[in-house]
Amino acid sequence: MAGTDKTKDMTSGGPAIILVDPQLGSNIGMTARAMLNCGLAELRLVRPRDGWPSEYAEAAAAGATVVLEGTKLFDTTADAVADLKRVYAATTRPRDMTKTVVTPRQAVAELTALPPGCSAGILFGPERSGLINDDIALADTVMTVPLNPAFASLNLSQAVLLFGYEWFLASDETPARQVVMPTSEPAAKEVLINFFERLESALDETGFLVPIEKRPAMVRNIRNMFQRVGLSDQEVRTLHGIVSALLGRKKKP
Amino acid sequence: MAGTDKTKDMTSGGPAIILVDPQLGSNIGMTARAMLNCGLAELRLVRPRDGWPSEYAEAAAAGATVVLEGTKLFDTTADAVADLKRVYAATTRPRDMTKTVVTPRQAVAELTALPPGCSAGILFGPERSGLINDDIALADTVMTVPLNPAFASLNLSQAVLLFGYEWFLASDETPARQVVMPTSEPAAKEVLINFFERLESALDETGFLVPIEKRPAMVRNIRNMFQRVGLSDQEVRTLHGIVSALLGRKKKP
Repeated sequence: MAGTDKTKDMTSGGPAIILVDPQLGSNIGMTARAMLNCGLAELRLVRPRDGWPSEYAEAAAAGATVVLEGTKLFDTTADAVADLKRVYAATTRPRDMTKTVVTPRQAVAELTALPPGCSAGILFGPERSGLINDDIALADTVMTVPLNPAFASLNLSQAVLLFGYEWFLASDETPARQVVMPTSEPAAKEVLINFFERLESALDETGFLVPIEKRPAMVRNIRNMFQRVGLSDQEVRTLHGIVSALLGRKKKP
Repeated sequence: MAGTDKTKDMTSGGPAIILVDPQLGSNIGMTARAMLNCGLAELRLVRPRDGWPSEYAEAAAAGATVVLEGTKLFDTTADAVADLKRVYAATTRPRDMTKTVVTPRQAVAELTALPPGCSAGILFGPERSGLINDDIALADTVMTVPLNPAFASLNLSQAVLLFGYEWFLASDETPARQVVMPTSEPAAKEVLINFFERLESALDETGFLVPIEKRPAMVRNIRNMFQRVGLSDQEVRTLHGIVSALLGRKKKP
């Protein structure tokens, strides 16, 4: 989706994203893009198979160069987490280890509750095999994305995106539902009532609102239908024009 | 991430995902994979640029063939939504249209509240340009993913994934935080207390728990440290072994 406003950069740092043994440069690039979509800035790579920097990563990052330029390389997972104080391992539920397992939303709740300066990171394993148990044992907690158990294999960048999305939502204040009116204001009720009364008198003239004992209910139904739209001033003017046109009263050319 | 259990397929139908003018077959394949990750089954394509079927789509779907095989082709967006009763357009906030805008979470809340048989779909635009206004006008509501406003351009399959993730979560009952113990049970408190008392008496012998007036606080701190772990029976046995080993009492070979 398009729509970028560089004056509102919400890249706030957040936990480091650590890719262990990533294989495809394109997946590293898509990871960088997903990170920046969600305001995450710090990418660490442990032994990227195809070397670093990577032209495939740059192409797939689709402009998220700030993330790629800051990427740090490490020889071991232990090195990559050495300075961190809280580490999550993104993987499916471990089958042979006793481990605390959280959802991404819970991980974000825990991360945002950490005291200032308590640096954190999330480990993600290689595309085909996921994290090995020795790397999972370096983490405090396992983070598992709830997904269709019959098809739970996520693309690497998709796994990073789902964590990042929860990270971004934690500080996001977008209303769940809103009416966006770029060119106009919501119509005041008197503007609406004026339109209703004009429409109803036009319908009276045409004999639509009969029989008379049903008129009150018909009027309420018509008013409710238009109320539900949440009309703007401009839209009420358009409706007046429609009524005029249907009545055969042309506007001035 | 690995981990697939085909006996627990949670593919439940859900709204149709409609890709309008998708360009890259690989993005269609990644979309199919993301859909199946989230239990979404129905994919519709309007004028896929590089034709259909697509070998790139099959490669990128990583096994989500059930989605690809059921994919339906349409010549126009109007045809693709004709049988649907509720349509969302996934795009950024419209700048020049009056439109209701919801988050993906809100869209899912509305979709799950629809009466049975009220079929629905989500429109996604082409990779570079997004949905055109005429297609947005076919939708009841715009769905916009809250993202870093300085870098809001999502990969097509990532946009589908974020909707699908919210769709899946709406019926998911995964605990936010749990301790997974594959091979053992949480230890009963008497097992823990038995270990504590053994450890403390061993520490008394070595002269660690001095001076005597600080012993109660030291014991409490040690006990709280182990309590916080949430130990399993097996782990308590391991700790007994560690204490024995440190005391120099070898196990039988």
